[in-house]
Amino acid sequence: MTIQGTGTARPAGRPRSEKAEKAITEATLDLIAEGMGVSELSIEAIASRAGVGKTTIYRRWSSKEDLVVDALATLKAPLPPLAGVSVRDDLITLLDAMRVESGNRRGRCVMNIAMSEADRHPRLTERFVKRAIEPRRRALQEVVERGVASGELRPDLDVTLAMAILSGTMMWHSKWGPSGDLPEDLAERVVDMALAGMAPPAP
Amino acid sequence: MTIQGTGTARPAGRPRSEKAEKAITEATLDLIAEGMGVSELSIEAIASRAGVGKTTIYRRWSSKEDLVVDALATLKAPLPPLAGVSVRDDLITLLDAMRVESGNRRGRCVMNIAMSEADRHPRLTERFVKRAIEPRRRALQEVVERGVASGELRPDLDVTLAMAILSGTMMWHSKWGPSGDLPEDLAERVVDMALAGMAPPAP
Repeated sequence: MTIQGTGTARPAGRPRSEKAEKAITEATLDLIAEGMGVSELSIEAIASRAGVGKTTIYRRWSSKEDLVVDALATLKAPLPPLAGVSVRDDLITLLDAMRVESGNRRGRCVMNIAMSEADRHPRLTERFVKRAIEPRRRALQEVVERGVASGELRPDLDVTLAMAILSGTMMWHSKWGPSGDLPEDLAERVVDMALAGMAPPAP
Repeated sequence: MTIQGTGTARPAGRPRSEKAEKAITEATLDLIAEGMGVSELSIEAIASRAGVGKTTIYRRWSSKEDLVVDALATLKAPLPPLAGVSVRDDLITLLDAMRVESGNRRGRCVMNIAMSEADRHPRLTERFVKRAIEPRRRALQEVVERGVASGELRPDLDVTLAMAILSGTMMWHSKWGPSGDLPEDLAERVVDMALAGMAPPAP
């Protein structure tokens, strides 16, 4: 009854290991936020900051790169559930998740630093993009394509460019917008202007 | 005749000092691109990389911060002249200047690194924004406001949001778009989609 055996061992062990895991990913993010580049980051420094032994880290992550990818991924909010009725509403839901996420100041800072090192750590960046960026990009693409199919968006819409307009405007706000929380109605205003366009309606 | 005197001294001196100035700003950008943070950057390191003495640097810049602001500003293309006829054409001209600029790979990399340190160097960032970002922002704003006044844009347009959509989409492409040069017709396609909107035209 090995499985049963492991099972009974877990209830006591799991919460503790989850707590350690969180301490380790948080320590990793803290060190990056404080200016330690991904290259200089060491398992020693992370272990010492998290108050755990190096073996605790190696038990869970086989390399520093794995750990950094996991730590960065914790900064990304989970994909919000979509109602699937109106394309406008679903676009607002997706953009609003970006707004909420960018309200996390440390998150923005860590992400900026990590991305500025992207050229020096192509494999890490690629894995992070696959893990944390691609699923959102796919969700956005599905909603835009649904809009084209349903007639809620132009039949000849350039889907990639539409996605760039929507994400880029949110990205601009978290980078250049007034510091502090982004306005609560931002996602709605962005989607509505992107849908209606800036030109005056045809007479 | 002091002015005349200075005038005759210059023709020989100026080209050499301009050459030194360029070597110094280039050395600064190189060191940042290689991963030396703004904090670690020293006048010694810059002088040694540029092959000049520290006094040559101090003759021109009174602090490291001044030098970094000037060096970063050289990465920004000058504002393009605007025809001032069609708002659509002027928007394309402004966005196309952003496209060309972001084709400079080292420039993108240095700018990312410098901006990731923005929190740690608020005064430097503020000066750089004033020097290199504000004039472009103002130019874009003037064109958008002209469009509202002329009826080429909606009378009730949210000017700030419109500017965010236009700049943000270009920014998105230089950050997340396919690596290498951005497509030559990108600015035109972005402006046309932003003007027309993604929703189907009213029947």
